[in-house]
Amino acid sequence: MLTLLNEYKHFNGAHRRYRHFSQSNQCDMIFAIYLPPRALSGSRVPVLYWLSGLTCTDENFATKAGAQRYAAEHGIAIVMPDTSPRGDDVPNQNAINIGHGAGFYVNATQEPWAKNYHMYDYIVNELPDLIEQNFPVNQTRSIAGHSMGGHGALQIAIKNPERYQSVSAFAPIVSPSDSAWGQAAFREYLGKDTAAWKTYDSVTLLREAETLLPCKIDQGTADEFYPRELQPEKLAQVAAERGFALELNMREGYDHSYYFVSTFIGEHIAFHAKYLAVLQKV
Amino acid sequence: MLTLLNEYKHFNGAHRRYRHFSQSNQCDMIFAIYLPPRALSGSRVPVLYWLSGLTCTDENFATKAGAQRYAAEHGIAIVMPDTSPRGDDVPNQNAINIGHGAGFYVNATQEPWAKNYHMYDYIVNELPDLIEQNFPVNQTRSIAGHSMGGHGALQIAIKNPERYQSVSAFAPIVSPSDSAWGQAAFREYLGKDTAAWKTYDSVTLLREAETLLPCKIDQGTADEFYPRELQPEKLAQVAAERGFALELNMREGYDHSYYFVSTFIGEHIAFHAKYLAVLQKV
Repeated sequence: MLTLLNEYKHFNGAHRRYRHFSQSNQCDMIFAIYLPPRALSGSRVPVLYWLSGLTCTDENFATKAGAQRYAAEHGIAIVMPDTSPRGDDVPNQNAINIGHGAGFYVNATQEPWAKNYHMYDYIVNELPDLIEQNFPVNQTRSIAGHSMGGHGALQIAIKNPERYQSVSAFAPIVSPSDSAWGQAAFREYLGKDTAAWKTYDSVTLLREAETLLPCKIDQGTADEFYPRELQPEKLAQVAAERGFALELNMREGYDHSYYFVSTFIGEHIAFHAKYLAVLQKV
Repeated sequence: MLTLLNEYKHFNGAHRRYRHFSQSNQCDMIFAIYLPPRALSGSRVPVLYWLSGLTCTDENFATKAGAQRYAAEHGIAIVMPDTSPRGDDVPNQNAINIGHGAGFYVNATQEPWAKNYHMYDYIVNELPDLIEQNFPVNQTRSIAGHSMGGHGALQIAIKNPERYQSVSAFAPIVSPSDSAWGQAAFREYLGKDTAAWKTYDSVTLLREAETLLPCKIDQGTADEFYPRELQPEKLAQVAAERGFALELNMREGYDHSYYFVSTFIGEHIAFHAKYLAVLQKV
């Protein structure tokens, strides 16, 4: 069921890559998991799900963010899924924001995407089930991501607060309905009826949400896609109107790259550790 | 003279990539420099030169090793050169260990390599001159590297102890004369006379050296190229025979990748900081 592709010792833990057949996406998927030393010595550890941005695979965050040092220290596993279904049989389009590498964490309803592009179900249900059945982890989860993955983490957390302890994002697309990338992708995956788009739009969702998990967002002020695709202030404003706590940090001079993510990932891991650890002791 | 290609804010310092014409290599070269916050606020800081391994450019270490966090903390600049001359006019060969990405940090004497492949002169003289004329650094230097770059750092440090404060290496080729990769490359660059090879062979050089700088080597026991291309014990043995201190750490279960390098880079930066900082205060 799970095929081990690679294994690397890393910060005294294990970084492993697996392939498996995904029911949600009807194709083989690859994901990576970092197991901290604590997990290798017999404890069940909590899990942070990391959702990457456009064009990424499981490998970008794994090799560039430098998160594993902090995960090792805090005793947290990190699961790094791919950003879309892939393969010769999976529809694609020659665009950075549609098709392979651009699943947008939705369940597509339109052709030719509807068969394979079910990243929402995959991330929310299928992958956690697989992880919790096969690895030394408990059911305590948090979720985070970058750019398109920040959108994924936020909309998933807002809709499923019972499944996670905390959420964080770097330079997230908080309102894909109001972003050129998001509009083009949602038109393809969800069709022209923007009512469907709203079910994946964090700003819209938060207006109606009953609660917001502990939430931390970092945004670089020199980000080449800010504010055109990224408007974290919009989400912060809705949170304020609703009386929800949301920590938005504007980071002077930082751009959209992993140089930005790696600078602040330690603070994000520590943030999640605080909430994951509470549950761990229950 | 120096053309800025990219700049990224990173750990409150600056990661910059430049192109310049190299007299040593008779072609354009790209290098990267990480300037810690201390350098940006008016202090001249010491410099660690990092030499990468086969197939790498300046970008592998910059994006994967996670060194900048430690460099920022210790107030050290890191210079990351390319691993060879490159370009359409620079001879190449379809091999991972000869030609582009495989300069082996020697001055080639054989055709077609002799015009461009002068990485030894470039690293020892040209690049430090350029760095010290154009950036807020002092003349306090250390040198480190990985695999082929570990070979580069060690043989350069052994021959030029007056130019550096300390040297370290991850999985270095300590005796290229006794490694398949090194033999093939040296035959191309230096010719059949193995007397020339010995001038770039750390094990041979250390036998005759008058001194050895503070020296730290890490080697993973699960390294796929150990011990065939990598025999750090040989260098440790010569050091012991000569009465030189050399710290060799065998790291159980670690491989040759940047997962290994990133796990221990913090210890290497701290090691160099100890020696660089002493000079800084003189």
